[in-house]
Amino acid sequence: MRIKTLAIVGVGLIGGSIGLAAKRRGVAERVVGAGRQQASLDRAKAVGAIDEGFVDLPAAVHQAELAVFCTPVDRIAEQILAVAPGCARGTLLTDAGSAKAAIVGAVENRLPDGVAFVGSHPLAGSEKRGPEHADANLFEGRLTVVTKTRHTPPAALASVSDFWQALGSRVRVMAPKAHDEALALTSHLPHLVATVLAGIVPPKLHELTATGFRDTTRIAAGDPSIWNGIFMQNRMAVIDALGEFQDQLSNLKLALMTEDWATLDAWLAQAKRTRDALGN
Amino acid sequence: MRIKTLAIVGVGLIGGSIGLAAKRRGVAERVVGAGRQQASLDRAKAVGAIDEGFVDLPAAVHQAELAVFCTPVDRIAEQILAVAPGCARGTLLTDAGSAKAAIVGAVENRLPDGVAFVGSHPLAGSEKRGPEHADANLFEGRLTVVTKTRHTPPAALASVSDFWQALGSRVRVMAPKAHDEALALTSHLPHLVATVLAGIVPPKLHELTATGFRDTTRIAAGDPSIWNGIFMQNRMAVIDALGEFQDQLSNLKLALMTEDWATLDAWLAQAKRTRDALGN
Repeated sequence: MRIKTLAIVGVGLIGGSIGLAAKRRGVAERVVGAGRQQASLDRAKAVGAIDEGFVDLPAAVHQAELAVFCTPVDRIAEQILAVAPGCARGTLLTDAGSAKAAIVGAVENRLPDGVAFVGSHPLAGSEKRGPEHADANLFEGRLTVVTKTRHTPPAALASVSDFWQALGSRVRVMAPKAHDEALALTSHLPHLVATVLAGIVPPKLHELTATGFRDTTRIAAGDPSIWNGIFMQNRMAVIDALGEFQDQLSNLKLALMTEDWATLDAWLAQAKRTRDALGN
Repeated sequence: MRIKTLAIVGVGLIGGSIGLAAKRRGVAERVVGAGRQQASLDRAKAVGAIDEGFVDLPAAVHQAELAVFCTPVDRIAEQILAVAPGCARGTLLTDAGSAKAAIVGAVENRLPDGVAFVGSHPLAGSEKRGPEHADANLFEGRLTVVTKTRHTPPAALASVSDFWQALGSRVRVMAPKAHDEALALTSHLPHLVATVLAGIVPPKLHELTATGFRDTTRIAAGDPSIWNGIFMQNRMAVIDALGEFQDQLSNLKLALMTEDWATLDAWLAQAKRTRDALGN
């Protein structure tokens, strides 16, 4: 895969890492970045993630064959719909958002002829922000979900899949809803839970925490505005996952209250087996 | 501080790390280990954590001036009460258990004259097990809680505090109950929550997890039998912490269900501030 001009909208940790990886691996001849703040674009350019930055989003996207939207999930569909009419025929649009059904549903069938959108979600990231934390190897060996619906053009699906593979990622094709239900359990619920664990411990008890607490709550340092958008867009699946979590937690509370140690022990053993299977 | 013979009962990750640290720092001339399995003692000796191993617990403890019990919390009090009558006058006993009130309550006022017990809890560890994961620097810069009640002999409290400081730890003196209530929030509840997050995600979704899930659930790989004992011994404080956690989780579920994004956003922001204050 060889792209002449790749556009990245939103040059934070993910966008910056895409730029670095695309340049390092020769996937793109030229990388342009779009962002609202000149300072972020300057930092992205300084770390080598983009060749040129534009505060004018259409100006960046309209010169690209492939544009990746790495903005908060609640802004992606709107940005794509605003910029698509000016895109050249053959322009391919994708994104890196953590919730897919809302974006795919809002964009599909509303693009001009010859402009295609395929949803993506690279399962990589960090609680850190900004292009200065970008990493050319962020996608190496990680999984990227690429979405497919009955409206997805096969050629566009293949090209977007090729793109992520060229950045070092494995690719799995999923329906947007299946992605969202899975991620509600594997990412959005854990985030919510981590914020509750972090939030209910008063700072005066911080000196009584150890690595377990730090690990368990690390993602609570994530950007609230990004996560609020994810919860908005994947609301129903997160509510379902939360319900399942609450039910199991209530079972364990009952076991504690009734001193039913066999049930608790069996649960701890099952959770350990599951976690061990995942690796470190 | 210079101990002639230090006994460590239970030569796993914590016991092994105490042995390594005591030898590396010249805190003990000789370290003896006690354990039920000769194989564990052999491994502890092989990594240099102990000089000699005993499957006969009293034989190890009775030659020591200081003995540290690093066995599961639900066995510590029983072991101490069994071994104390044969200890020489001036023997000091302590432990490394994660729950303190039950142990301190069971041991206090039941020791022979001249034998003292002071509860300890070094806030260091890992989800890993065994002396092969022992680390001479495990306590470096970490906090150890040392318990004090109206029955604690001041000289014993001072000596046990000196011991942990000599291993590189900071020391904080607390009442057993205050320790247990704090640790219910900072350690025991997070462990329970991590097992639920790990346990409700079916293995077929594991490839859809990223670092956030791995961090959040890492401690679920801890030894179930050790954790079951901790939950037994700190049952009421864990139930209280769990109730507080459930209440806040219900608040957030309500915010999701009613699309009250301002409440959710304020919570995410507060949790981020708290987590940021803790550092990485």
